[in-house]
Amino acid sequence: MQVDLLIHSASQVCVVPAHDGPQRGSRLGDLGIIEDGAIAVKDGKIVAVGKTAVLQQKFTADHTINANGRCVTPGFVDPHTHIPWYGDRANEFEMRLGGASYMEIMAAGGGIMSTVRNTRQASLDELVADNLPRLERMLRWGTTSAETKTGYGLEKAAELKQLDAMVELNRQQPVELTYTFLPAHAVPAEWNGRTDDYVQYVITDLLPAGADWMEKHNVTLFCDVFCEAGVFDVAQTRAILTRAAELGFRLKVHADEFEGLGGTRLAVELGAVSADHLVKTPDEDIAALGQGDTIAVGLPGTPFGLAEDEYTPAKAILAAGGALALASDCNPGTTWNESMQMVIALGCRYMGLTQAQALAAATINAAYAIGRGDEVGSLEAGKQADILILDTADYRQLGYRYGTNLVQTVVKSGSLVVG
Amino acid sequence: MQVDLLIHSASQVCVVPAHDGPQRGSRLGDLGIIEDGAIAVKDGKIVAVGKTAVLQQKFTADHTINANGRCVTPGFVDPHTHIPWYGDRANEFEMRLGGASYMEIMAAGGGIMSTVRNTRQASLDELVADNLPRLERMLRWGTTSAETKTGYGLEKAAELKQLDAMVELNRQQPVELTYTFLPAHAVPAEWNGRTDDYVQYVITDLLPAGADWMEKHNVTLFCDVFCEAGVFDVAQTRAILTRAAELGFRLKVHADEFEGLGGTRLAVELGAVSADHLVKTPDEDIAALGQGDTIAVGLPGTPFGLAEDEYTPAKAILAAGGALALASDCNPGTTWNESMQMVIALGCRYMGLTQAQALAAATINAAYAIGRGDEVGSLEAGKQADILILDTADYRQLGYRYGTNLVQTVVKSGSLVVG
Repeated sequence: MQVDLLIHSASQVCVVPAHDGPQRGSRLGDLGIIEDGAIAVKDGKIVAVGKTAVLQQKFTADHTINANGRCVTPGFVDPHTHIPWYGDRANEFEMRLGGASYMEIMAAGGGIMSTVRNTRQASLDELVADNLPRLERMLRWGTTSAETKTGYGLEKAAELKQLDAMVELNRQQPVELTYTFLPAHAVPAEWNGRTDDYVQYVITDLLPAGADWMEKHNVTLFCDVFCEAGVFDVAQTRAILTRAAELGFRLKVHADEFEGLGGTRLAVELGAVSADHLVKTPDEDIAALGQGDTIAVGLPGTPFGLAEDEYTPAKAILAAGGALALASDCNPGTTWNESMQMVIALGCRYMGLTQAQALAAATINAAYAIGRGDEVGSLEAGKQADILILDTADYRQLGYRYGTNLVQTVVKSGSLVVG
Repeated sequence: MQVDLLIHSASQVCVVPAHDGPQRGSRLGDLGIIEDGAIAVKDGKIVAVGKTAVLQQKFTADHTINANGRCVTPGFVDPHTHIPWYGDRANEFEMRLGGASYMEIMAAGGGIMSTVRNTRQASLDELVADNLPRLERMLRWGTTSAETKTGYGLEKAAELKQLDAMVELNRQQPVELTYTFLPAHAVPAEWNGRTDDYVQYVITDLLPAGADWMEKHNVTLFCDVFCEAGVFDVAQTRAILTRAAELGFRLKVHADEFEGLGGTRLAVELGAVSADHLVKTPDEDIAALGQGDTIAVGLPGTPFGLAEDEYTPAKAILAAGGALALASDCNPGTTWNESMQMVIALGCRYMGLTQAQALAAATINAAYAIGRGDEVGSLEAGKQADILILDTADYRQLGYRYGTNLVQTVVKSGSLVVG
């Protein structure tokens, strides 16, 4: 059979198979390694995965890549970023290191509202131009699909501008983007002290505007809420997400970053695709993850970025039978890092994941966390050909080594895009 | 005046001036920023640094680089690595994540003796080939000078082979290497339980062999000892270093990584150029750093690599008036990271350094930590032209952002080597 591309002679092809869904509980870390492996690709999809000798017999290819004893993995999927935003907060990081308190930083115009002001003021073109380099770095470090969010607009025009920017960003570069609507990311300054009123505004104005946008663009958006003490409580989160579901959004929740309010249990109850952060998650909520279909998304860059010492309790979530994914949370306030390799390194050190568990959490389970587990995240026949060749023979160098870049070659939908 | 190279139109030229020595105590973090800056280079050295308009008036150049609103800093100096070594220990990292104890890892053939066995068995050519990619990565991430060490030989032939490998590595690529002799890195398995005898062997056999090598190659080596509970105590460290000084070595000490034995005080007393690790450093030793000329080298990658929670007490060292540098400790056991940008990110988060302090610690003070403060580490006239152009207008993005690579262009001794 004639194919477009044959990648062969890989020391290891890490298939990272789906288990009729995400890899759950103690089964996380199944890489399905094929030694001296090869992958055949046609029309942007994987046709076959197997031994080099077998695939070289079965297929002739227009293009071949000799992996030459290197390791091959699925492209990373980053299921939680705050791209697109405008500007940076390096000054705020400096103030914090100099000992400034959160209140002092806020008084100096810092914090999330600083990014909201910048993002509101930026034109669509400026917003796109500011975020393209971030996606280019994600790609060079191996991310082939990512979630992106609104939430720095917090008013109709700016939230819709963020959605429009995502579409433009998706069009202009290879990392494939999933879109999330997060008007309930924070209570904007102009609604200060009137959280219930802002929630009503989200429900009556912003969600319908997002729903119109969905219809116009013929895509399904996720709707997400930052369920946290001092931001949106469980009742407010429930009200927003319930209305969002009625309008056709799929659901996500930011939960338990600083306090465990019950946001994760709510996510499972509402059938949310993922619950993200999950640092202070109560035992009851961990048990709920083991029963439900909601993916637990750990974001170890966030406590790392803030030099905090508590991370997502991965072992408890796995012991309960939950499905765990990893994501970068890439954002200008707490953790500006585009590299899923770095996230894997943090997941190994601070969540106690083995390299195999972290790799599966950053690929197949991350794909399920954005509702795309059937299309990407593993090297199985029928999946999109999103493939990395690492500059090492052993996948276990992921996580073990950190700070640089082990990705040598990136193939996206069958096309060579890096290397 | 005609020069070889003019770099101009930098948003910031971070000069990071020497203060007739390293930047000490509260004066750490003096970047001497020149806005809209330029640098003139002739014969591999910096001729002038100043405003673009002024230097464009004064100099005509064979080559120009338009920094185009980007930030320019000195090349990073990495004053503590364990390059060259052979092989990896990804399996051991996996065992540790899987819950194996230190003793179980040792019983499985892991730990430092695993790297010693590999390094002893490798030929000189294999050792060079295995380490070249590490230095290439260091360069791409902005390191232009680095210290390298023996210590995985622990017998005469293998220690000398490591020294020979350093010379060959120095010759084959642009990162300029400083050489350290560390036969007292560990007590090798064949001397188990006979530490005093091994110390005698170091003093009577290995140090003279190193001294002969110095004479033959006409370079000065540093001699270093791993002064730590269960390895070499203060008396043994003193005996080795005293003999080393008599033989013409300059001195360094690994001290206080796991216990504060007094190694740092000893380093100051013996006039060592640096004392490195310094996690459990007693107050008395911190006070000694404030009085003496020994540079305190923090290695935040090491506790990070091991997911430990104690780091070099930078603020106390600075409050005592000490001179603090940063280094990677790049090694296959505890922290395989070649990026000084990552080290800066860790130093900001876990040692409480501002970006300016961390940058000075990774450049001018790091240069003093390898005895080269007069040649490299700052962008001052007369210094070697080791220059980075970052892909950002603001040096404060160093540390704030992590996981990827902000270095766009590297100039080493006046030659464009990256970008």
